[in-house]
Amino acid sequence: MVVPVRIELLTTGTELLLGTTQNTHGAWIGQRLLGLGLRIARQVTVPDGQAVGKAIRTGLEEGEVLIVTGGLGPTSDDLTREALAEVLGLEMIEDEAALRTIEEFFASRQRVMAEANRKQALVPAGADILVNPNGTAPGLYLPPRLSGACNCAVFLLPGPPRELYPMFETEVVPRLQALGGIEEAPGCLELKFVGIGESDFHQGVDEQLETIDGLEHGYCARLGEVDLRLIGTPEVVMEGRRVAEEAFGHELVSDDGANLEEVVVRLLTRQGKTVAIAESCTGGLIAARITDVSGSSEVFRYGFVTYANEAKRDLVGVNDIDLVKYGAVSKPVACQMAEGALRAGKADLAVAVTGIAGPTGGSEEKPVGTAFLGLAVRGGETRVVRQFHPWGRDAFKRQVSQSALNLVRQVLGG
Amino acid sequence: MVVPVRIELLTTGTELLLGTTQNTHGAWIGQRLLGLGLRIARQVTVPDGQAVGKAIRTGLEEGEVLIVTGGLGPTSDDLTREALAEVLGLEMIEDEAALRTIEEFFASRQRVMAEANRKQALVPAGADILVNPNGTAPGLYLPPRLSGACNCAVFLLPGPPRELYPMFETEVVPRLQALGGIEEAPGCLELKFVGIGESDFHQGVDEQLETIDGLEHGYCARLGEVDLRLIGTPEVVMEGRRVAEEAFGHELVSDDGANLEEVVVRLLTRQGKTVAIAESCTGGLIAARITDVSGSSEVFRYGFVTYANEAKRDLVGVNDIDLVKYGAVSKPVACQMAEGALRAGKADLAVAVTGIAGPTGGSEEKPVGTAFLGLAVRGGETRVVRQFHPWGRDAFKRQVSQSALNLVRQVLGG
Repeated sequence: MVVPVRIELLTTGTELLLGTTQNTHGAWIGQRLLGLGLRIARQVTVPDGQAVGKAIRTGLEEGEVLIVTGGLGPTSDDLTREALAEVLGLEMIEDEAALRTIEEFFASRQRVMAEANRKQALVPAGADILVNPNGTAPGLYLPPRLSGACNCAVFLLPGPPRELYPMFETEVVPRLQALGGIEEAPGCLELKFVGIGESDFHQGVDEQLETIDGLEHGYCARLGEVDLRLIGTPEVVMEGRRVAEEAFGHELVSDDGANLEEVVVRLLTRQGKTVAIAESCTGGLIAARITDVSGSSEVFRYGFVTYANEAKRDLVGVNDIDLVKYGAVSKPVACQMAEGALRAGKADLAVAVTGIAGPTGGSEEKPVGTAFLGLAVRGGETRVVRQFHPWGRDAFKRQVSQSALNLVRQVLGG
Repeated sequence: MVVPVRIELLTTGTELLLGTTQNTHGAWIGQRLLGLGLRIARQVTVPDGQAVGKAIRTGLEEGEVLIVTGGLGPTSDDLTREALAEVLGLEMIEDEAALRTIEEFFASRQRVMAEANRKQALVPAGADILVNPNGTAPGLYLPPRLSGACNCAVFLLPGPPRELYPMFETEVVPRLQALGGIEEAPGCLELKFVGIGESDFHQGVDEQLETIDGLEHGYCARLGEVDLRLIGTPEVVMEGRRVAEEAFGHELVSDDGANLEEVVVRLLTRQGKTVAIAESCTGGLIAARITDVSGSSEVFRYGFVTYANEAKRDLVGVNDIDLVKYGAVSKPVACQMAEGALRAGKADLAVAVTGIAGPTGGSEEKPVGTAFLGLAVRGGETRVVRQFHPWGRDAFKRQVSQSALNLVRQVLGG
């Protein structure tokens, strides 16, 4: 594949080098650029302060496009704007429109603008303002001509992801496309699979994909899911998809970037059904994931976080005797939780989970990581599955929530 | 503050720039070095292949210590060893001890060593082998004299964390210490504040902190919270803390890295109290955050996700008439939800939230982003606060959960 433009990414922030914050911008921007047929040639991280100017200079010299993140805030260690202006010998001018936008940002939130925020409206002469609807720091774009002999286009973007991501989509992508030199973007298809790991693909599928001429493929594995990325002409991508679906059609959740909870809410909405959720070990995570989806109030109405035994009895009618006899983490309890949630939640289906998140509470018979998942359907039979995810508390919760949502997806025929 | 040794970190790997793998080495190594009183001056990531040699050259020129990760594997795109030898003009020699270790690694796992693994025993003349008990790739250490005029010590380390981390501890740390020039580690204090933003610090506090001689400070802002980082001698750090606490003592959540939910669970545990949670707009997120904390089952037993009006009535006894008269997002409903959760959840305190996450459902009087938070205390008065967080669905949920947990913290005197 041709790499038409040399892109340098400079992420700034002392916290990234002290290790108190993970640097996730490289991966996110890398993925987004790949969709455009572009790649990052080099990524550099420097602390706030003097090092920023030097790194900008190197980036300008080596790149055709320089993307800088962070350091656009109102405090004293936010110096990216000034460093760039100094390197390029540009004057800083207060941009009226930018200042108005910042003022409006505060006014709409009924807050008073601090004097410090005023400096966020200072921009190097000739730069474009990139609007930031999610924060006070406007981004900046300097076309190649402003960097003189370097002939390098520069983007300054805010550090916080919720500000950076939307700005990247609406302001950066169109400008990258307008810069030209971008060959036609190859087709890029992302298939989301749930319930299998990257190593499952290595058994056969990976080799088959490698034999497809002109197809580039890669994986992104997360807890309980794998994205398969296929890059190439439409025909070649389709061929790759055929191979993947033949092996793992049942595990394929989406081909349009939708995540598992979005797919579940979509299926429920289409079928006019509601789901109730009873959670012990996931402690509300399944409900929280469902309600992350806009429109979920049409399909989700009742959630029960039955963390204690009494709560299992009081809220979803689990039998006291069974709780003692089989224990809270057991097949009968998962079954009764699901059926109780169906009843109390007046729903068409209900999913319930109970398990041992750890680090304590395990036994030889039921070690930390054990979970029972129940799925009850109005007028149908209740299913219970036993699983084991011995990965530590957060990962366990995430995995169990993943399996529970996947159960719902499967019963809806998704 | 003195930065005694300039450390360059070079992480190699195409997947890091395509974004299919998160680059977590920077944060991990950064944290580890900070404990030794050292810092990463710059972190660079380049793809596998030609770019590695050039990046090594730059690292040698600019650093006093160069740490390179990745590219020590057996496959064709693993070229770090060769690239370093070429840059320094060193011959590659097969190291007998290293070869034996690799052979033993395979033998102990009853696997046959592939011919490709043989190249992992090739080392630049004069380099030390760093033993890798967790994989086939030995690490390498080149003392400063081998880099000639650059006078830069070089570590080549394997990419996989389970190989890298132990090798860093046993092989890298002692050599860094032996290099000398390491001053006594400065104190590093991280204070977590909730309910204020980075710009709040700029009003006075930031300036005061700057006047403290020998104190380095910085911020890391996330949704609804700010970390203030103070670095310097113990006296100077304590002085910085005094300044910050004087301004924002009420918002200070922790000084030991504990997050808000950990602090809340800690306070509840110490006071022997339980909390019940009734959630509408956050849809289970508050409960999920509480149950992220190990030991939370002692203090949290009942959670109610009352997403629909009927659920508010059925589970926490909200009055039907009030639901119609005031609407689900209202002061009376938040109040009744909290009191109902206290009762039904048999708890010592209860927090309830109801709001409009959007994107739809807003009105002129109650726009998207409006939330009411109720806090009921056994034998005490119920408080309700109205808030506004117009940040989009995910951010809204996060902010409201943050405020709810902070209410609990405050009532517990934390």
